[in-house]
Amino acid sequence: MRVGILTISDLGAAGERADTSGDAIVAWAKERGYEVALRGVVPDESDRIAGVLARIAGMLARWADSGDVDVILTTGGTGLTERDVTPEATRGVLERPAPGIAEALRASAAPHFPRAWLSRGVAGTRGKTLIVNLPGSTGGVKDGLAVLQGFLDHAVELVTGTRTAHG
Amino acid sequence: MRVGILTISDLGAAGERADTSGDAIVAWAKERGYEVALRGVVPDESDRIAGVLARIAGMLARWADSGDVDVILTTGGTGLTERDVTPEATRGVLERPAPGIAEALRASAAPHFPRAWLSRGVAGTRGKTLIVNLPGSTGGVKDGLAVLQGFLDHAVELVTGTRTAHG
Amino acid sequence: MRVGILTISDLGAAGERADTSGDAIVAWAKERGYEVALRGVVPDESDRIAGVLARIAGMLARWADSGDVDVILTTGGTGLTERDVTPEATRGVLERPAPGIAEALRASAAPHFPRAWLSRGVAGTRGKTLIVNLPGSTGGVKDGLAVLQGFLDHAVELVTGTRTAHG
Repeated sequence: MRVGILTISDLGAAGERADTSGDAIVAWAKERGYEVALRGVVPDESDRIAGVLARIAGMLARWADSGDVDVILTTGGTGLTERDVTPEATRGVLERPAPGIAEALRASAAPHFPRAWLSRGVAGTRGKTLIVNLPGSTGGVKDGLAVLQGFLDHAVELVTGTRTAHG
Repeated sequence: MRVGILTISDLGAAGERADTSGDAIVAWAKERGYEVALRGVVPDESDRIAGVLARIAGMLARWADSGDVDVILTTGGTGLTERDVTPEATRGVLERPAPGIAEALRASAAPHFPRAWLSRGVAGTRGKTLIVNLPGSTGGVKDGLAVLQGFLDHAVELVTGTRTAHG
Repeated sequence: MRVGILTISDLGAAGERADTSGDAIVAWAKERGYEVALRGVVPDESDRIAGVLARIAGMLARWADSGDVDVILTTGGTGLTERDVTPEATRGVLERPAPGIAEALRASAAPHFPRAWLSRGVAGTRGKTLIVNLPGSTGGVKDGLAVLQGFLDHAVELVTGTRTAHG
């Protein structure tokens, strides 16, 4: 499985601090034998929200259409502040929503972390690429990856057409 | 209660195998004293996806508008392959979404079957008809019907106007 | 926190019975030290559904845009009867959906009240105001407020910009 990792962050892009959430996804991918094929950071400058949205959408679309990745995991920008526009950018490029994946991420984390309900993340497919929004915090990313593990391989097989059985 | 059953399947339509998921809905309906008023199959030919989508949407709209059914249960086409277009077809004919019904189907099945989160099914109303997408597998259908049992009678009373109290 | 309370009801508006659901929100707000800044009732006359929808949407937009409230809680009109149009009115004025809040309300109530899955309520933000649809019944309102308590303060801090960290 070829993974793309897109971090949306006000700090990581400027290099003021490490992209620890993106790093957590890289570590997870390596542990599972996945290839990290693409990685990027979009800075979420608070004074240019429309531009941030367009940059996220542009990268998601380009990555998905490149054929270089089977799944794109984003981290960051799913919250309730006015700068959080990752769900809007993602919805704009998705061809088919998979709401259950976003529900899974929230419902699975909420019992021990009620604020997980506040993530506005979405998920779905564009062409043969699955796109999933993860939270921005490193803890949220790890929780989310643990949930995805239950069905991600199967999901990607269906999306890429490796497996044709469908429900 | 008058039930319509629409199977979306690549096999059932061609008669290559029995429509066991549709049969499971029929058995459930009879057991509960519901009338199976309409039943149909749309073959999901992989080379004509747009046509399949249009056929599903057309049948859902015609059935709902006929006044012959109180609830339409679909089975199949809710997954992540490119041929799975039942949610798109259904969304196109719904007048009012009832997202909680789709959430219930996923959340209730997921504890023992994590892949249930991958179903992209939707639910909602068109006129006085409730439409619910169930998964394609016979096991998924049975799990879904068990969940629906907790609120379907009440839901249909509200949709058809038999009961006017509302929440 | 400044709270707006909007009741959608066929009875409360006509004064035929007390607005007990709205009263329950007032009691909850006072207990928690919140200010009830705005309160209103929209009667959901069954013969003027489009007008009811427009009135709900108009009040939500005006309240949110006034800067007088940080959160608007609605009660009523989220069900499956043809008169229930609160979700449609709310979706029309939301700028950014927060689907997890609506999922939380349903998923948390459903274990002891399966019909909670039938609520079609939505949630999200308009400008710096959070809007959440609660059910119409007093019991449903109380259940919903208990769920909101787990994350509402934090959510409003994010929406209003009091807290700038984001996920």
